[in-house]
Formats: sequence, C-alpha cells, structure tokens
Amino acid sequence: MGEQSGTRHRFVTPAEMQVEHLPWGPHEWLCRPGLTEASRLQLVRVRMPPGTGHAFHRHPSLEEVIYVIEGRAEQWVGRVRRDLGPGDIAHIPADEVHATYNAGDSTLVFLAILSPAASDGPAVVDVSREEPWASLRASTGGTP
Amino acid sequence: MGEQSGTRHRFVTPAEMQVEHLPWGPHEWLCRPGLTEASRLQLVRVRMPPGTGHAFHRHPSLEEVIYVIEGRAEQWVGRVRRDLGPGDIAHIPADEVHATYNAGDSTLVFLAILSPAASDGPAVVDVSREEPWASLRASTGGTP
Repeated sequence: MGEQSGTRHRFVTPAEMQVEHLPWGPHEWLCRPGLTEASRLQLVRVRMPPGTGHAFHRHPSLEEVIYVIEGRAEQWVGRVRRDLGPGDIAHIPADEVHATYNAGDSTLVFLAILSPAASDGPAVVDVSREEPWASLRASTGGTP
Repeated sequence: MGEQSGTRHRFVTPAEMQVEHLPWGPHEWLCRPGLTEASRLQLVRVRMPPGTGHAFHRHPSLEEVIYVIEGRAEQWVGRVRRDLGPGDIAHIPADEVHATYNAGDSTLVFLAILSPAASDGPAVVDVSREEPWASLRASTGGTP
C-alpha cells in the first residue's frame, strides 16, 4: 500500500478508495484509519439516490461537517432544517442530532467530514424512532 | 449570527462564509472558530489561479486533507508528487511538509480540511527556502 515508505496512503483516488454500501447510498471512503494514517480526520463521499436519506442520528464523540458537491440536501441540525446546494455546509457539534435527505430528483453527492478518526463507544446512535425526531419532518411539512 | 439559539452558525453558505485574500488565491472559510462552533474541524475552499501555488510548508500540530473540486493540482506530500483531479485527496499527517500548485490552465478549486480547529504555537511554518524543498520541484522537472 502507498507510494512511499509508510504502510498507508498519502493519496487516495478511485483506485484506492474503499466503498461501503448502505441503504442511503454508496459511501466512498477517502480517509480513515487503515486507508490513510488518519488520526484526527475521516472523509467519506456519499452518493444518495433520490427518495432516500440518513434519518435522525447522533455521533456521541465525533464532530462533523457536511459539504454538498452535487444536488440538493434537506439537512437537519437539531430541529432546524435548511436546504443546501453545491458548496454549502452544515456544522454538527459532537452529540448533536442531525439528518440528511435527498431533496431533489437527482443523486445527492456530499462529503461527510468527521473528527477524530476513531472513538470509544458507538460511532452512531439512531434516534429516528424517538420523539421529537420521529414526527419532526411530518410536523414541518416534510415527508415523514 | 446563526439561525438557532447559539451564537455560531450551523449552516454556512456564500452569505455567511468569510473570505481571506492570500497570494495563492481567495480562501473561502466555511468552518472555523468564530464562524461555527468548530472545535475539531476547519474547512476552507481555495480558488487558486493558474500559475500560482502554496509553496512547501508544514502545520506542526494540524492534520490535513486536501480534496480537489475542480481543475488539476500538483500535490506534494513530503518528497512525493501526485497530480490530482476532481474527487481525489491527499492526506497530510501533522508536521509533514507539503505543497499545492495549480497544474492546469484554469482555476484550481480545492478544500483544505484541518484538525483540530485551533492549536498552540504557529499554524503554519514556511520551509520553501530550506533544502531539500527549495530545489525539489526543479530537480523533478517541475518549475522551480
């Protein structure tokens, strides 16, 4: 692995990236432990099909930034919704509940940036069946 | 500031971003302390004109990922050069010397992701006049 003396990549292109298949679209890992020498940074590019989303969840010990590359995102941070387009971001402090849905008719492509690169305890906690999150989209005009 | 109870933004679009003008192009800050509640993540989008670059430097206590959005980057990590296109990344462990130049005829647009969001001591140390960095590009066929 890697072009130089280390055992991990300094450069990651489609030839090196690691693809994970999740219900809300393929996740193309570009930076994480095992792929790079990541200590503080994780980077994954998500290709979210129309009609899908990653429902309300939180990362107890990971701070996150969402960066939209293509398409439209219905982005929630806490109880606040904003629709984001290419070049827009959302910042999600550690443990804050958030969700991302595809708000358009084409694939939504976005980067999820997480820090640090590893954590004790669960990386993700699903709260989508708990209130107020379970009924939040319906109560604000979104699809439940 | 901010759409919700806090004093910092959860969403950053061109209306909120902070632009810093440097010799190698405008830096559009999307996440950093003062703009968001950033603790572990900094994100800046750089628009680097043809013929310019950010010469060899290191961040003593910041880990970094470069993500190319548009154009071609001549990216150095240590003594290794790779030309990167849209969607490719470079991972730069803390304190590792690196440089980015525009390798094309159009504006190079890339994201620089840094962690943590603040650090003791200097954020950047310029080593571009020290060897081997001062003559590295010339010795490998690049423009000095």
